[in-house]
Amino acid sequence: MLTKNHIKLITSLSQKKFRQQHQLFVVEGIKGVEEFLNSSFELHLLFSTESIFNAETVIISEKELQKISQLKTANTALAVFEIPKKKELLHTGLILALDDVRDPGNLGTIIRLCDWFGIKHLVCSNTTVDCYNSKVVQATMGSLTRVDIQFVDLEAYLRAYKGDIFGTFMDGNTIYKESLPNKGVIVMGNEANGISAEIEQLVTKKISIPRFGALQATESLNVATATAIVLNEFKRD
Amino acid sequence: MLTKNHIKLITSLSQKKFRQQHQLFVVEGIKGVEEFLNSSFELHLLFSTESIFNAETVIISEKELQKISQLKTANTALAVFEIPKKKELLHTGLILALDDVRDPGNLGTIIRLCDWFGIKHLVCSNTTVDCYNSKVVQATMGSLTRVDIQFVDLEAYLRAYKGDIFGTFMDGNTIYKESLPNKGVIVMGNEANGISAEIEQLVTKKISIPRFGALQATESLNVATATAIVLNEFKRD
Repeated sequence: MLTKNHIKLITSLSQKKFRQQHQLFVVEGIKGVEEFLNSSFELHLLFSTESIFNAETVIISEKELQKISQLKTANTALAVFEIPKKKELLHTGLILALDDVRDPGNLGTIIRLCDWFGIKHLVCSNTTVDCYNSKVVQATMGSLTRVDIQFVDLEAYLRAYKGDIFGTFMDGNTIYKESLPNKGVIVMGNEANGISAEIEQLVTKKISIPRFGALQATESLNVATATAIVLNEFKRD
Repeated sequence: MLTKNHIKLITSLSQKKFRQQHQLFVVEGIKGVEEFLNSSFELHLLFSTESIFNAETVIISEKELQKISQLKTANTALAVFEIPKKKELLHTGLILALDDVRDPGNLGTIIRLCDWFGIKHLVCSNTTVDCYNSKVVQATMGSLTRVDIQFVDLEAYLRAYKGDIFGTFMDGNTIYKESLPNKGVIVMGNEANGISAEIEQLVTKKISIPRFGALQATESLNVATATAIVLNEFKRD
C-alpha cells in the first residue's frame, strides 16, 4: 500500500537536500529500475502497477503512481534506491573531472559518455549538479550504475593528484598533436565560464579542439559535445 | 508602439504552421539579434527596451517585451526575421544529413557543431524538428546564420546524390580505420530508432564509433554527441 509517508518521502527526494539527508534517490521506468536492480545499488522501496520485478514490490494504481512520479506520464514503476557510501578515491587510469557543470542534461550525457568510453571514475566539484537529480538519472539510462561518481573539493583533489592534469582551453595545444596517455585527469569546465581560475593553475597540459569554421564561427562547443570529442581522442588509436 | 497585431503575429510564430505561413521566425536577446542583424537574414520587425541596435527599432517596456517573449525572463530585445528563400541545393564538400532528429536541443547542438567544423550544408528530412523553432534558435547562438539548412524529402535527395553516403550503425566499420574523405554525405538518425530502413538502403558506407566500456555499457550515444565524434573524425588529420 502507498502510504502518506511514502508520498512525503518520495516527493521530498526531488530536492537535493532531502536526497542528502535520507541518502536516497528515485529511479523511474521499467528499464531504468531493472538496470539498478541488476547493479550493486541497494533497493529501498519499489512501487509498480504490475508485478514484473524480481524484488519486493508494492503494487499501486496508475493514479497513485502518477501522484509520486516526476515524469509527465508515469511509466509503470518507481523505485527508491540508496545513494552508495563514499568509497576511497582511486587514482588509476583515466579520470574525468567536472568543474562546476550545472546542466542536468549535460551531466547525464557525460555519464553516458564515460560508460561508452570505459572511463570508470568521474570526479565532480561540489558545485556540479547532483548526479542523483531525477533528470540526470533519467538521462543516464543506467550508465549511473557502471560509472563511479564522487563529489569532492576539486581543487584539493587535483592538488593531491600525482600525474598529468589535462584541461581544455581556447589557447591550448591542438588535441590532434598532443600525446594523450591512458592515465591522467581530464578536466571539463562550466557551461558559461569554462574551467575556473583556481583549477586552471593546477592544469599541467592545456589542450584544445581545433575549430574548422570561419573566424566568426561559434565561440565554444557545448561541454557534453566537447567531452565526447576529447574522450574519443584519448581512447582512439 | 507594440500593437495588437504585433502581439498576435509574434505569439503565432511559436507554432511551425504559422512560421511557414508567414515565412518569419523570432530571435531573442541582444547577442542573438545582433548576430542575425550582421548576417544575410532580412529583418522584419525589431522590438527592444533600449535603443542599442543599428536598425529600425520599436522601443517597448519590459512588461510589453515579456508579453511577447517565449523566454521565462525576456532579455532586452526580440526580433522577427524572414526565413530565407529556398536556394538551389549544392552537392559540394561534406554535407550532414539528419534523418528525423526530433529534439530541438539536439538540432541546435548539431547546427553549432556544423559551424565549428566548417560544414556549410545541413540537409534535414521533412520530419526533422524545424530549425526556426525558438528553442533551436536560442540553442544555436548565431550558428544558424552561418550554416545553410534545407528541409527536403531525404530519400529523394539521397537517391539523386552522386557520391558516398556515410551512415552510423552499430555494425558499421570502425570509424578509426575507414578512409573519411572531404566530400560526401554523412547521415545521422533519429534519437530512438537511428537511421530508417529506407535511408539505410541508400547508405554506401556503414561506419560505427567503437565502444570501449563493458559489454553491458550504454547501448548508443546521444545523436548530438555521436555527431560531434563523427565530424571530428572526418575533419582531423
